[in-house]
Amino acid sequence: MTARFVEVHRNILSKNDQMAAALRGRFQTAGVLVVNLLSSPGSGKTALLEITLTRLAAAGYRGAALVGDLATDNDAQRLARSGAPVRQIVTAGVCHLEADMIERHLDGWDLNALDFLFIENVGNLVCPSNYDLGEAMRVVLLSVTEGEDKPLKYPPLFSTANVAVITKIDIAPAVEFDRALALANLAAVCPAIPIFETSARTGQGLDTWLGFLQEQRAAFVAGIKALPA
Amino acid sequence: MTARFVEVHRNILSKNDQMAAALRGRFQTAGVLVVNLLSSPGSGKTALLEITLTRLAAAGYRGAALVGDLATDNDAQRLARSGAPVRQIVTAGVCHLEADMIERHLDGWDLNALDFLFIENVGNLVCPSNYDLGEAMRVVLLSVTEGEDKPLKYPPLFSTANVAVITKIDIAPAVEFDRALALANLAAVCPAIPIFETSARTGQGLDTWLGFLQEQRAAFVAGIKALPA
Repeated sequence: MTARFVEVHRNILSKNDQMAAALRGRFQTAGVLVVNLLSSPGSGKTALLEITLTRLAAAGYRGAALVGDLATDNDAQRLARSGAPVRQIVTAGVCHLEADMIERHLDGWDLNALDFLFIENVGNLVCPSNYDLGEAMRVVLLSVTEGEDKPLKYPPLFSTANVAVITKIDIAPAVEFDRALALANLAAVCPAIPIFETSARTGQGLDTWLGFLQEQRAAFVAGIKALPA
Repeated sequence: MTARFVEVHRNILSKNDQMAAALRGRFQTAGVLVVNLLSSPGSGKTALLEITLTRLAAAGYRGAALVGDLATDNDAQRLARSGAPVRQIVTAGVCHLEADMIERHLDGWDLNALDFLFIENVGNLVCPSNYDLGEAMRVVLLSVTEGEDKPLKYPPLFSTANVAVITKIDIAPAVEFDRALALANLAAVCPAIPIFETSARTGQGLDTWLGFLQEQRAAFVAGIKALPA
């Protein structure tokens, strides 16, 4: 990248950060826990999100989702089956979501009526890491089929994540997944990150994942109440 | 993206295109067929490339590889096992390879002593599509684990590819891969693209893939000789 490019890029990031900070304030006021999901294309973000929205709704929580893609509203259609409010953000070629895309797509939604808002980012292990969307929690997904070395090869994104989810664990034997190596690589890049192991297909690990989300929401709401007025 | 960002981006692309054109001239003069491999992280670029280099060497061809990653030289180490000359390009956070990175990493290599040069791009289904590297052929990989809808969701990259390879076909049953749907989606975004179906693990489909590469190299060399002097 040229110096000029880097400079313009910084200005855009700075504008994004300001908008993200404003969004974060709105989310806190409304008590909605916002979760930004990031991964490679095809790691299972939509599958995990569909079952998560369905199970949270069954437990009495009110969830919604914003879904980013370069093209198509396939993911929004899949997620709508959960019954939760879902909106597709078509980025028209942009390789990541930005805070202003989130802001525009919240229009008309009552944030006070939500407990969770999930943002499914564009499938990309590089570019989304630079863009704060006002989320409370950044979750990186790593499927067992992708290779255990992904945290080492994409450190910027993994190191900014708060939570890691290893997906598709039902096919771990078929792809000879080396779990110990994957955990060691995650530990090397994002020490002490909470790691969940799930299969959206078999349901394995979902109780633990959903319990964690509910605890985080409770802590988030309690934390907001504890903030100085 | 802001207008300013787009404008600066265009200038960088234009500079990249000029450098790529110069590289393409060098590759043609030397008679080296350059193949740019693109896919999501973890689709199996390195595995396919390792077996491809090994098998081409056994058939008497001289191949080399440049491998792009944000961090680590894991892939170069894996590829070096093939015995072919391999160089790692560490992009230090840049989400794609650019022509000047290729140019710098060719330093000291005798292109006349090569039949094939493979460029393994950064794992990213979005950004590399904009950057011409002087390649003769752009190959997109899609693993059976990623979801059949990827061509529809990432049309810029798929539509610029010359060849598609569906990888990891040995685990297609385990992931309930819908082959007909994947082929239909590829046909929709990149009509008439040659499609190969391979497994680097079992060797399935490799003979066809390697035969195709050898034919393409022969046609490339014949085509160069047929160019007006």
